[in-house]
Amino acid sequence: MEKNATTIPLTTDLSNKKPTVCIFGTGDFGRSLGNKMMQCGYSIVFGSRSGHASGLIPKGAAVLPHAEAAETSNIIILAVHRIHYSFLEDLKEVLHGKVLVDVSNNLKINQYPESNAEYLAQLLPGSKVVKAFNTVSAWALQSGALDASRQVFVCGNDSKSKEKVMDIIRSLGLTPLDKGSLLAAKEIENYPLQLFPMWRYSIYFALGLSAFFFLYCLIRDVIYSYVEKKKDISFRIAVSIPNKVCPVVALILLALVYLPGIFAAILQLYRGTKYSRFPDWLDQWMLCRKQLGLVALAFAFLHVLYTLIIPIRYYVRWRIGAYILEQAFNNKTDPFINSSGWIHDSYLSCGILGFFFFLLLGITSLPSVSNNVNWREFRFVQSYLGYLTLVLCTAHTLLYGSRRFLNAGTYPWFLPAVYILSLIIPCIVLVMKFVLVFPCLDRPLTAIRQGWERKSKSSNNRCGSSV
Amino acid sequence: MEKNATTIPLTTDLSNKKPTVCIFGTGDFGRSLGNKMMQCGYSIVFGSRSGHASGLIPKGAAVLPHAEAAETSNIIILAVHRIHYSFLEDLKEVLHGKVLVDVSNNLKINQYPESNAEYLAQLLPGSKVVKAFNTVSAWALQSGALDASRQVFVCGNDSKSKEKVMDIIRSLGLTPLDKGSLLAAKEIENYPLQLFPMWRYSIYFALGLSAFFFLYCLIRDVIYSYVEKKKDISFRIAVSIPNKVCPVVALILLALVYLPGIFAAILQLYRGTKYSRFPDWLDQWMLCRKQLGLVALAFAFLHVLYTLIIPIRYYVRWRIGAYILEQAFNNKTDPFINSSGWIHDSYLSCGILGFFFFLLLGITSLPSVSNNVNWREFRFVQSYLGYLTLVLCTAHTLLYGSRRFLNAGTYPWFLPAVYILSLIIPCIVLVMKFVLVFPCLDRPLTAIRQGWERKSKSSNNRCGSSV
Amino acid sequence: MEKNATTIPLTTDLSNKKPTVCIFGTGDFGRSLGNKMMQCGYSIVFGSRSGHASGLIPKGAAVLPHAEAAETSNIIILAVHRIHYSFLEDLKEVLHGKVLVDVSNNLKINQYPESNAEYLAQLLPGSKVVKAFNTVSAWALQSGALDASRQVFVCGNDSKSKEKVMDIIRSLGLTPLDKGSLLAAKEIENYPLQLFPMWRYSIYFALGLSAFFFLYCLIRDVIYSYVEKKKDISFRIAVSIPNKVCPVVALILLALVYLPGIFAAILQLYRGTKYSRFPDWLDQWMLCRKQLGLVALAFAFLHVLYTLIIPIRYYVRWRIGAYILEQAFNNKTDPFINSSGWIHDSYLSCGILGFFFFLLLGITSLPSVSNNVNWREFRFVQSYLGYLTLVLCTAHTLLYGSRRFLNAGTYPWFLPAVYILSLIIPCIVLVMKFVLVFPCLDRPLTAIRQGWERKSKSSNNRCGSSV
Repeated sequence: MEKNATTIPLTTDLSNKKPTVCIFGTGDFGRSLGNKMMQCGYSIVFGSRSGHASGLIPKGAAVLPHAEAAETSNIIILAVHRIHYSFLEDLKEVLHGKVLVDVSNNLKINQYPESNAEYLAQLLPGSKVVKAFNTVSAWALQSGALDASRQVFVCGNDSKSKEKVMDIIRSLGLTPLDKGSLLAAKEIENYPLQLFPMWRYSIYFALGLSAFFFLYCLIRDVIYSYVEKKKDISFRIAVSIPNKVCPVVALILLALVYLPGIFAAILQLYRGTKYSRFPDWLDQWMLCRKQLGLVALAFAFLHVLYTLIIPIRYYVRWRIGAYILEQAFNNKTDPFINSSGWIHDSYLSCGILGFFFFLLLGITSLPSVSNNVNWREFRFVQSYLGYLTLVLCTAHTLLYGSRRFLNAGTYPWFLPAVYILSLIIPCIVLVMKFVLVFPCLDRPLTAIRQGWERKSKSSNNRCGSSV
Repeated sequence: MEKNATTIPLTTDLSNKKPTVCIFGTGDFGRSLGNKMMQCGYSIVFGSRSGHASGLIPKGAAVLPHAEAAETSNIIILAVHRIHYSFLEDLKEVLHGKVLVDVSNNLKINQYPESNAEYLAQLLPGSKVVKAFNTVSAWALQSGALDASRQVFVCGNDSKSKEKVMDIIRSLGLTPLDKGSLLAAKEIENYPLQLFPMWRYSIYFALGLSAFFFLYCLIRDVIYSYVEKKKDISFRIAVSIPNKVCPVVALILLALVYLPGIFAAILQLYRGTKYSRFPDWLDQWMLCRKQLGLVALAFAFLHVLYTLIIPIRYYVRWRIGAYILEQAFNNKTDPFINSSGWIHDSYLSCGILGFFFFLLLGITSLPSVSNNVNWREFRFVQSYLGYLTLVLCTAHTLLYGSRRFLNAGTYPWFLPAVYILSLIIPCIVLVMKFVLVFPCLDRPLTAIRQGWERKSKSSNNRCGSSV
Repeated sequence: MEKNATTIPLTTDLSNKKPTVCIFGTGDFGRSLGNKMMQCGYSIVFGSRSGHASGLIPKGAAVLPHAEAAETSNIIILAVHRIHYSFLEDLKEVLHGKVLVDVSNNLKINQYPESNAEYLAQLLPGSKVVKAFNTVSAWALQSGALDASRQVFVCGNDSKSKEKVMDIIRSLGLTPLDKGSLLAAKEIENYPLQLFPMWRYSIYFALGLSAFFFLYCLIRDVIYSYVEKKKDISFRIAVSIPNKVCPVVALILLALVYLPGIFAAILQLYRGTKYSRFPDWLDQWMLCRKQLGLVALAFAFLHVLYTLIIPIRYYVRWRIGAYILEQAFNNKTDPFINSSGWIHDSYLSCGILGFFFFLLLGITSLPSVSNNVNWREFRFVQSYLGYLTLVLCTAHTLLYGSRRFLNAGTYPWFLPAVYILSLIIPCIVLVMKFVLVFPCLDRPLTAIRQGWERKSKSSNNRCGSSV
């Protein structure tokens, strides 16, 4: 750097003028980027096969044949599809030592064995390839609608070239993020093709579960009542049934967040080591836990809203009015039952505290919060608070059904209530966790997780000095 | 770097001692920064015109005339107003090759044609100017009250000098953020002068709208009732009227988030190209959409709270009691009307789901969340979920008024209810969006947004190979 | 960099193959890291005292004696406890010029006078020591459960070595964060040992306060009623008492956020300068304000939930029914009192607005939000909105008690209601703030905070030109 500064100043250094940048390709992205860069003070030279300006080129930009265009600038942005890269081989000499910015995307994830940028680097070993801009949309550049992520991922093997490209990115009002060497190009190229890859399973599963329980409630409540009692209570579809489905799905999903950890513990205890990989389904499941938990939180939030509007509902007001009027006409006041007060209030309190801790878990999983938390703190929150939430929510559901469990002897059409179904998985998880906490199981498990292996004999002592 | 390591170690390298730093200027910021740096282990030499210590200088710091002070250190922090920079020209030789840290701020945005740091670099071309620390307040440094942003923006043309300054920033417990070359200095100098520049329009507009609707409701409900019926229902000012104003403002603001997109689509269809700029008012409006949406969410949140406390209100309890007592005294029970149950419950359900999706939109606009989302995902959330939210909230309002629309024949003082006014813009937006979704309009629009131009003839095919 | 590119390509540059990395130490962390790196394509050579592979070593990794292992790679990861570092002195020559990655952690905060990495750098001055990986858990590496922070703090004096280590970190799917020179190693080593250091005081204090008020309410409500009136109202423990404790604790904590600022202002006015340090307890208190405020928000949130479920409670429904039935049996309707309507609705409105602004304060303290806010904006939000919140919440509590203040002449067992106790500190803060806003006090305070000192005579004018 110092050497450079004393001999020939770099274009970005010590001078206020922005450099001329050459863009190969006059397609939508090339023109949008050129347009935006010209608005930010750059001189743009387009390189095209014909070398003639067309009506589409932004006003003020020059258009030259590729070789001449490349000579005007040290930085060439390559807005061309990968399949056309071969023409660059003829320009090898002109492009030698220059910064080549690969902005290309593919149509499918992992379309080619190597990333476009690495392919380009192989094609032109004398040029300095930098991957950038592929995560930005042409439409966003054009309309200025950059509400979305302003991050532009950059990677490349030459750090000085990367620095130059990052300066251009910054001057366009975007935020460059250095992702390291060209090895990262594959990941960067796959990134914009994803549509919530981690969330899909969780959301589809939750929607499937919701549909099942919705149909179940529809049959058990509305259709049963209509067929057997000739009573139309279809208005329950709007609020009552969603308010049964939401808590049930939330509780099951929350339990499913902690089930894979239990499986993993059992597997490790059985194998006596932590160094063999889990089966793929368990690995996948463990990676989805955060998303499962957040979807569960969304359902719990809906449950809270549906519950809080209960007293505003016309039906509820009518029912309470009818109940009071019945007492009035019969000239009697139903007494207050202390135990019912206890059960009902505890049920509400468990729900409130469960939701509160659930929300805390959700907040700590926000990227900016979890980045400010170290591993020890994260584990404290996610395991202690997580199990506390599960216990409180399970207790909430148990207390809800407390009086109904006993006298529910006859089920409509032999279908148990949904809250009974929702308790199966949480209770299994809590019982198994309770068993795993016993010292006879907890101690070997802790040892295994600290690197101990059951079959190892002498080797374990030998490396006692290692971390 | 390697060369340095073998010859003369840099002050920051390979030695635990922190370097001596020179500060020009003994004003508040200079002293606060010096004080803080001394607490963190640096030796500080102040440079002042007189060269004498005054009672204000932190204990332990030396005070020397400028030239002598500059000789003690490779890093000189310039805590002096821009108007006094001229005295530095006499020190040109002493400062040659040294790192000059410009911490200055201006009183107004864009006060000078060039940034202070660039002006300094022109004045002393031999020195390495780094812009830093201007976003930190002297009061925060002094009191340790660094709850606010710990980010310190840094820019400069010499990366080694920047690295040194960033090391100092880190050792003070702050987080340096490299903003690139000195070209970024202007932006960095304007930054601390802003007071929510993007939020102002949205907040003022929302407050204006709220004031209008508050007055409107006050006249239509309270004053009308007082004048025409001699009934004092002024207590409604506290809860009932805010709970009419909040949802109305929220719905209108939400619709205004999507209206500019519709205008933009029409303009693009009419012009047949996306490459001509929108009028300024539309550009400004599009840039405010996120803020408009978040202000709308705040009003929607207030509406939710105001709605949920309805059953706790003394007035509501009294009214329900009076209604039941009336039935009791008349010896009759009002029947339950199934259709009312349906309408009322659907109205609540639409509101709950609308608020839920609105909140999801709000969460995805948190900086840390939107940074983890690619462009495709962001568009999916903001357009699909956004329109879903608008549809649900409009349906919520329509269902609220469903029965009132018909028998509201006579308005008090010819004033329609506010919910009717609030529906105008959302309905326009939804109808126009519905029209734009038809293939005969959607297909050319999509083509235009992908770069196609109506008037272009041959040029379009020629660059088919470009991205 | 450029020189390197033309002579011998670096292992990370221009070739797709990942370099061989050597790991000293075959303990849990060493093996977990080696395993993970091998999954990501690295060749791993373990260095151990014996130089023999044991069953524990991941398959495919070589094991060699330390000296031979070190020769295979330019990067040596040191997964060995600090107490064993002495053996490295024998390898001085082999390790000369190589990158040594120190991953070690200590058992206690500040266990040694200098950090492990700095100690290592002193031991082997010819090697390039980089601190990294110590914030990652072996268990997380092994299980892939990297939901927690993916940030790996890196520091070191040689930037090229740091870059190499950061590339490895990126290729493992983690995010490196450059913390500067080796001086940062101490902080990085202390980081994973912390368990919410800033939160502890606030949470313990809040829990203590909650326990006190819970007991107070238990005695005043439940036990008093049981002893004096022989009435069992113990069911109130589940909801009624928590809903008294939560708002009281929230209000007191919120007031305690603003109290230290008042103390600081008085101290500065008294001393006539801002350049002398505050007493330690005040410093500590000021640093805890954000945490105190967020804990207060959590209690306020619980209060909101507990309040909103009031109308669903069995006890409340029974009481309202009994009240209506009493009127029905007595054949009279209680009239609606306009002033009660006003007071009750204002009380609710203050609470809603107070909670709303409190939530806004909470959102702006999210790291990703406060990083996007400059100092001026942050102060605007935290001081203006903060005091507005305090005023609204205090008014909410005053209005709650408005009618009870007067006729509460006789307290059960001479214990005043908790809401009266909760008002003491907020009222003191608001009165003192009101006094401090008077110009006769505000003007000198502002001057002091801008650097003016009461005793300074001539020096103040002299440095008028400084920032």
